[in-house]
Amino acid sequence: MTLALELRLELQQLYAEYAACLDDGRVREWPEFFTEDCHYRLVPRENHDRGLPLATLDLWGRGMLEDRVYGVTSTLFHAPYYQRHVIGPARVMELDGLAICAEANYVVIRTRRDQPSEVFNAGRYLDRVVKLGSGLKFAAKVCVFDSELVGNSIIYPI
Amino acid sequence: MTLALELRLELQQLYAEYAACLDDGRVREWPEFFTEDCHYRLVPRENHDRGLPLATLDLWGRGMLEDRVYGVTSTLFHAPYYQRHVIGPARVMELDGLAICAEANYVVIRTRRDQPSEVFNAGRYLDRVVKLGSGLKFAAKVCVFDSELVGNSIIYPI
Amino acid sequence: MTLALELRLELQQLYAEYAACLDDGRVREWPEFFTEDCHYRLVPRENHDRGLPLATLDLWGRGMLEDRVYGVTSTLFHAPYYQRHVIGPARVMELDGLAICAEANYVVIRTRRDQPSEVFNAGRYLDRVVKLGSGLKFAAKVCVFDSELVGNSIIYPI
Repeated sequence: MTLALELRLELQQLYAEYAACLDDGRVREWPEFFTEDCHYRLVPRENHDRGLPLATLDLWGRGMLEDRVYGVTSTLFHAPYYQRHVIGPARVMELDGLAICAEANYVVIRTRRDQPSEVFNAGRYLDRVVKLGSGLKFAAKVCVFDSELVGNSIIYPI
Repeated sequence: MTLALELRLELQQLYAEYAACLDDGRVREWPEFFTEDCHYRLVPRENHDRGLPLATLDLWGRGMLEDRVYGVTSTLFHAPYYQRHVIGPARVMELDGLAICAEANYVVIRTRRDQPSEVFNAGRYLDRVVKLGSGLKFAAKVCVFDSELVGNSIIYPI
Repeated sequence: MTLALELRLELQQLYAEYAACLDDGRVREWPEFFTEDCHYRLVPRENHDRGLPLATLDLWGRGMLEDRVYGVTSTLFHAPYYQRHVIGPARVMELDGLAICAEANYVVIRTRRDQPSEVFNAGRYLDRVVKLGSGLKFAAKVCVFDSELVGNSIIYPI
């Protein structure tokens, strides 16, 4: 039982570390939160609910995540903005010693230079997390966001 | 002591399940989060703080919750919108083996079709939770929201 | 190990109590969350990241916090507003039996009279928390907020 308690608290820590990595602008470290053969997907809710294949981002394997990092840091031109993730309590669906399936609601607040902070993206994470020697990693992370209307582009990962 | 830890984590899970039920649009399952003789109340802060009786919703017993579900799903006409609850850490006021009194801040982000996501409702939950054979249930849930100005109607439960 | 679990849950409770104190408008109780020789700092991210000394508030010791409370309650004239803090999961950086270094993202929703609720301030807490006989207290709390553009003044603590 204590194992389950520990694992839940480790999961919270993982969410907090993940948010801090992105919100601090340490996007180069972002792929380290994932397993080698991970799946990262960012998809509007409408497409997700209907099973439509189109997604804003659909990355298979850490290599594709690193490509995205390269794009974000080296080739995409965009007005700079800050992100701030606030993540709600995790809904743990399955948990054993090796893996956790969990969901969590999130809201990302965006702040552009000389602008007030605003709601940028809200949705839920559908996560499969595994425990490796190096700690908890996302084997799959699907970010389903509520609005199909995105103000400007989504540059950074959610 | 471990009991207290467990119960706190179960409370987090309850909040997460509650949010997921509403945000997934599974409103028919919403009454199952409550005891038979529950009290659900949605009230602006101004009225709550002054002890005024008027509330946006004031439902006594699961039957009234089911009536509300019927209204939401069958008789109310409204522009569709998504809800997304992000709930903060619980402030546990009392906890024994049988019941928990707790508060938690929340923000609900609303997304209307072809609109950006926006802050819809922010406030705090005042909850009394009991442990039944079927798990934790709300014996009372009072949602005190900060704004008396509500953009359009509140259709779905908060 | 159970000690660490307990302390993490106590930290969550501290965050919840802190938010409730401010959001309930009990600003006079705010200094009680801090040690006698505490440091409270509210600073825009741009200044924090560049190591610039200017801060919106920079209070050393509980006496200065009490001065601020006096200002807020007795000398500052401002349009009234409600605050609502929603705090994300804590990122615990260090934890032993005596102290915790932790970060947490937050968003503060503001509601002005007859106005819809809106994002007011978003950022992260950088906290050093110590365990005294009277419970967990902030030895240092640095609130780094993302927007340098603040709509009206920040009157109440964040």
